Amino acid sequence: MAMQACQVILGVDPSLRGTGYGVLELDRKQARVLAQGTIKAPPAWERSRCLVQITHALRDIIQRFRPVVCVIEGLFYAQNIQTTLIMGEARGASLVAAAEAGLEIYELAPRKVKQAIVGYGAAQKVAVAKMVQRRLELAEPPSPDAADALALALTYAQENGRFSLAPARRL
Amino acid sequence: MAMQACQVILGVDPSLRGTGYGVLELDRKQARVLAQGTIKAPPAWERSRCLVQITHALRDIIQRFRPVVCVIEGLFYAQNIQTTLIMGEARGASLVAAAEAGLEIYELAPRKVKQAIVGYGAAQKVAVAKMVQRRLELAEPPSPDAADALALALTYAQENGRFSLAPARRL
Repeated sequence: MAMQACQVILGVDPSLRGTGYGVLELDRKQARVLAQGTIKAPPAWERSRCLVQITHALRDIIQRFRPVVCVIEGLFYAQNIQTTLIMGEARGASLVAAAEAGLEIYELAPRKVKQAIVGYGAAQKVAVAKMVQRRLELAEPPSPDAADALALALTYAQENGRFSLAPARRL
Repeated sequence: MAMQACQVILGVDPSLRGTGYGVLELDRKQARVLAQGTIKAPPAWERSRCLVQITHALRDIIQRFRPVVCVIEGLFYAQNIQTTLIMGEARGASLVAAAEAGLEIYELAPRKVKQAIVGYGAAQKVAVAKMVQRRLELAEPPSPDAADALALALTYAQENGRFSLAPARRL
């Protein structure tokens, strides 16, 4: 993929009550964090309200930072059917926001992201957060959700900017 | 629940490439079909495009018919994790449309709907469609997806209008 002079990428790690997001601006040499955080929903909120919150928050982030690509966490290993269904709902709410805004959407498996960022596919969350902090020169380590989202965006940038052995799957 | 003079209910049976919907208008004595059908997405479409299609189509239907309640298919029995995840995404896209518009959202398990409509929890799809056709005085049997959606709305109406032994679960 030919990179533009400057490209903005949105990473999303969907979860019903704590969707991580990270917005990276890339030029030829480096990546800069424009925004990062967690879209939170209190435990008392109904599921449908949490989903609307995810869509609205991502829509706002997209309008503000104008990313052209969205990278979302792919295949994960759920404990059970109910967890998977709820995770799917959060993914659906995220994908609607990104696709409505016309972003190109890709997914990357968590294992692959860990491999790319930490060099070890079964790395722990804290290792990912520390490496994301270092690579993106953040003053503090990002929250686990935001770290995962930033790691997604960074991995995509790496793969497409330099080496593209196994490109992300278009969704 | 005290019924208003007239209440409009939207039933939704979410699925990535064929989401069934049915809109019922209820007065004290009878239910009338305002709209029904399937939100289709061609096999060639990317998943995210299908999800946006679901959200947009439901948003249009809601704006046109102004339902106050949305009843969505609940717990289902998926073959595997991947199927469940995709089903969850379709549910998420549906729930966002309904919740954004301020509808009250409920879910009903397929078994319960079949029990209410056909009198038998393991009834076949064609039996549900035939009974829905008869109960709603439709000229032709609705498509399977639309029949499921109409059955959801009808079951909710039945439970809340007359007997409410086991109310639908608020989502």
